[in-house]
Amino acid sequence: MPLNADQAHYLFSVMRLAVGARVALFNGRDGEWTAEVVEAAKKAGSLRCLGQAAPQLNPPDLWLIFAPIKKERTDFIVEKAAELGCAKILPVQTEFTNASRIRQDRLQAHALEAAEQCLGTYVPEVSDLQALQALLKGWDPARRILWGDESLVGPAQTLAGLTPGPWAILVGPEGGFSEAERAQLRGLDYVTPVSLGPRILRADTAACAAITLWQSALGDWM
Amino acid sequence: MPLNADQAHYLFSVMRLAVGARVALFNGRDGEWTAEVVEAAKKAGSLRCLGQAAPQLNPPDLWLIFAPIKKERTDFIVEKAAELGCAKILPVQTEFTNASRIRQDRLQAHALEAAEQCLGTYVPEVSDLQALQALLKGWDPARRILWGDESLVGPAQTLAGLTPGPWAILVGPEGGFSEAERAQLRGLDYVTPVSLGPRILRADTAACAAITLWQSALGDWM
Repeated sequence: MPLNADQAHYLFSVMRLAVGARVALFNGRDGEWTAEVVEAAKKAGSLRCLGQAAPQLNPPDLWLIFAPIKKERTDFIVEKAAELGCAKILPVQTEFTNASRIRQDRLQAHALEAAEQCLGTYVPEVSDLQALQALLKGWDPARRILWGDESLVGPAQTLAGLTPGPWAILVGPEGGFSEAERAQLRGLDYVTPVSLGPRILRADTAACAAITLWQSALGDWM
Repeated sequence: MPLNADQAHYLFSVMRLAVGARVALFNGRDGEWTAEVVEAAKKAGSLRCLGQAAPQLNPPDLWLIFAPIKKERTDFIVEKAAELGCAKILPVQTEFTNASRIRQDRLQAHALEAAEQCLGTYVPEVSDLQALQALLKGWDPARRILWGDESLVGPAQTLAGLTPGPWAILVGPEGGFSEAERAQLRGLDYVTPVSLGPRILRADTAACAAITLWQSALGDWM
């Protein structure tokens, strides 16, 4: 298979690989493959696949909906969602969200890098920023939403009683959700509010904790 | 109560509070108190306590032992341990740990900041870097260790069967533990290896996930 200029630059100029060197490949669908370099030039080259090294590991059907916060913490949420096993990442604008746009391409690259770092073979799709209202308007109620409701500071509910199936986790921005948003979320049948313990958590911490709890109760950590 | 120069600088020069302004106070032992400014100068001033605003919330008897990684991720681990509710944070040097020293004062300040940000009233003590060997040599076996063993990639064990009591969570550096360390840990009665799901996690993600699982099974998230 031929390499594009960026790939060739990375493999041969940055990593300084030569003909015969082994490379691990993944495309997000077919697991991990071992390949060897058969041609290496500054801006071109090609690889030959030698065989599959690991089967494809897809995450469970879990989405993460979050409100972008500061750049560093937004990057962090995307990275952690990819590592902990979310299928899709949806940034949303809520009433208390400061960001009015995001760099979707940068966040998507971040998700890819997290998969590469952790030897994953799946990269969650990061969608562009949309309003929470628009997202809820078109929501398929067959996908339930686990809402990290920061007003429920107290013992965390056990998730053991929840029904398996497609789910999304929703965490708010710093400052939480507005009263109107809270009332709306409380009124939706497919939304289950959940406490994340007796301490107030930052948005990025809440995302990590909620994904972990869901994965260990309903996901592929069982 | 009198303020020192740093406190006065922060309250009156940075935050620009005037006499009569309300401030939330905590000392790590007596919960949260409301106070008002009675004197305000550039480098001095005093507060008067008005009453307790929230009771003290101490975390369960859970320690976090981790191997320092890159600066940003080390800061992150300390912040998350403070937020998720660890009583004590112990950085250790393992065979694959690159850091030979840490800025204990900076990490301690980070733990304090995390508590302040999340309206916590407890600040975990961050100890200085010590060798894992030295730590294990003096270890009280009454405190069990939950070891995030990266060789156990697969379904996460349920922690529901574990005995309550004093615990510590141990997570390794990037690159994991050495063969010798693994053999030693496996041989210790008070160490329980645990899988953190089917994906390989970065050290900081592993710390967050392990604390969350412990808190929801044995800690104060129940």
